[in-house]
Amino acid sequence: MAIKPLGDRILVKVLDAKDKTESGIYLPDSAKEKPQEAEIIAVGQGKVLESGKVQAPEVKVKDKVLFGKYSGTAVSTKEGEEYLILREDDILAVIS
Amino acid sequence: MAIKPLGDRILVKVLDAKDKTESGIYLPDSAKEKPQEAEIIAVGQGKVLESGKVQAPEVKVKDKVLFGKYSGTAVSTKEGEEYLILREDDILAVIS
Amino acid sequence: MAIKPLGDRILVKVLDAKDKTESGIYLPDSAKEKPQEAEIIAVGQGKVLESGKVQAPEVKVKDKVLFGKYSGTAVSTKEGEEYLILREDDILAVIS
Amino acid sequence: MAIKPLGDRILVKVLDAKDKTESGIYLPDSAKEKPQEAEIIAVGQGKVLESGKVQAPEVKVKDKVLFGKYSGTAVSTKEGEEYLILREDDILAVIS
Amino acid sequence: MAIKPLGDRILVKVLDAKDKTESGIYLPDSAKEKPQEAEIIAVGQGKVLESGKVQAPEVKVKDKVLFGKYSGTAVSTKEGEEYLILREDDILAVIS
Amino acid sequence: MAIKPLGDRILVKVLDAKDKTESGIYLPDSAKEKPQEAEIIAVGQGKVLESGKVQAPEVKVKDKVLFGKYSGTAVSTKEGEEYLILREDDILAVIS
Amino acid sequence: MAIKPLGDRILVKVLDAKDKTESGIYLPDSAKEKPQEAEIIAVGQGKVLESGKVQAPEVKVKDKVLFGKYSGTAVSTKEGEEYLILREDDILAVIS
Repeated sequence: MAIKPLGDRILVKVLDAKDKTESGIYLPDSAKEKPQEAEIIAVGQGKVLESGKVQAPEVKVKDKVLFGKYSGTAVSTKEGEEYLILREDDILAVIS
Repeated sequence: MAIKPLGDRILVKVLDAKDKTESGIYLPDSAKEKPQEAEIIAVGQGKVLESGKVQAPEVKVKDKVLFGKYSGTAVSTKEGEEYLILREDDILAVIS
Repeated sequence: MAIKPLGDRILVKVLDAKDKTESGIYLPDSAKEKPQEAEIIAVGQGKVLESGKVQAPEVKVKDKVLFGKYSGTAVSTKEGEEYLILREDDILAVIS
Repeated sequence: MAIKPLGDRILVKVLDAKDKTESGIYLPDSAKEKPQEAEIIAVGQGKVLESGKVQAPEVKVKDKVLFGKYSGTAVSTKEGEEYLILREDDILAVIS
Repeated sequence: MAIKPLGDRILVKVLDAKDKTESGIYLPDSAKEKPQEAEIIAVGQGKVLESGKVQAPEVKVKDKVLFGKYSGTAVSTKEGEEYLILREDDILAVIS
Repeated sequence: MAIKPLGDRILVKVLDAKDKTESGIYLPDSAKEKPQEAEIIAVGQGKVLESGKVQAPEVKVKDKVLFGKYSGTAVSTKEGEEYLILREDDILAVIS
Repeated sequence: MAIKPLGDRILVKVLDAKDKTESGIYLPDSAKEKPQEAEIIAVGQGKVLESGKVQAPEVKVKDKVLFGKYSGTAVSTKEGEEYLILREDDILAVIS
């Protein structure tokens, strides 16, 4: 089963704590909003601007990214895979 | 009886739990907003941008899509068919 | 007496329950916002976009349409005719 | 004394109940927002769009119009004439 | 001392009750927002539109205008002159 | 140490009561929002409009200006100099 | 590990009190919002304007900047480095 995001939406797989340690992101326990790490699974065509131009997303499949913790909508397939659908603007940075 | 959506609106038929299992989407029971699955029945001409351009929708008839659970307006025909009218932006992804 | 709507406004006649049955729309009694059925009596020239373009309405006189139940402003002529003035964006779909 | 409205503003004279009956508008006593009838006395040059274009108003002096009851700002001259200054978008329709 | 308003701001001198009677505006004691009368002292260059165009104000020095009573910021010079700085959009009409 | 404001931001030095008297602005004790007087120390490049044009600020270094009393962010250097960073739109007028 | 901000986002390292004294910014203890000092570590490609133009950021790597104290999202690497991801508009000024 494939999930193709629409517009400026991005499908990601949230990386669990172990992955997080491997790629080196540690999220400090503070009062600030904390981002989470995820891997890009699929990208939409991009946001439609008022000029009619479609702005292709900056991120691409397999990018590892940081996003705001409370962003997005959770979906999961019958195979038990869980994903999150974000808007591109919810993604803060690409990490490598 | 035909229902032709206007502008960026999309007419969909919500898929019931059985369909949902067949296409493999399982919606986890979490605090996050949960999307629902639907099939596209008819599409509007698209959103009118400030430039005057009409942006044709990305989705087409027969696409299966995910949309935000509390989106849209319910209508049903005298034949007992129930539909939902969404805005294209309420649709998160096409599934296949 | 004639009523000519301005801009993106649309003059409609709300169809009563009998008409509603004939055209086949049945509105289920649910928690969702319910649309109503109406016939277009007159249309404005359309919305003025920021580019200066006037966007002609998609609907035309005699179209039967669905609109959000709490939309619009009621007017009635001395002949006892009651109408509603809607904005085009309050109209969800054309039915036929 | 003359009052020249600015931008998209329109100067109107509200028509009293008698005029209202003559032109045939009867405002039903319902829960919906009720429009009032008025005659256009003077119009501004029109709204300035972001493109810099000035959009001339659709209404002209002597038009009879319907507007939202709680719209506008009341002014009256020393001769005892009372007027209302509306924005063009507060005007719903021209009647004839 | 000179005060040059910036952008779409306008410097006005509020006219007192006596001036108001001479120019013939009488403000009725109603529940509606009441405008006040003022004379234009200086005008800004105008509003900068998103297109980059600067839209020169419709009003000019010495115009007598009506403006919303609670609009603007009061300033006064050491000579005891009191002024108000308005945005052009707060000005409803020019009177003559 | 130099502070260079970004975008449409403006660095000002608030003028104390004595300066205020010399330049002749007296702020009446009323219920209205009161502006304060300041001198421009540095200006940003200007606001970026949606068209991509950068709109250079109307004010320049050494201008004396009036601004809304509760606007801006205070900073001060180790030499004990205190400044305020405003947005250009917070500045009401240039005085001379 | 590298963190590449997206769009108009900027990655900064907040400078501690000692650095702050060296560069000469002293933040007074007042009721006003206080900015903090930081060094730019990485910049996004810039904001996408409605015209489709990408507006490159005004700041560059190694710039020392002032930003609003409660802005941004904290992240830290496993090496123990703590960073903040800001939007360019949260940055008030470059200091030197």
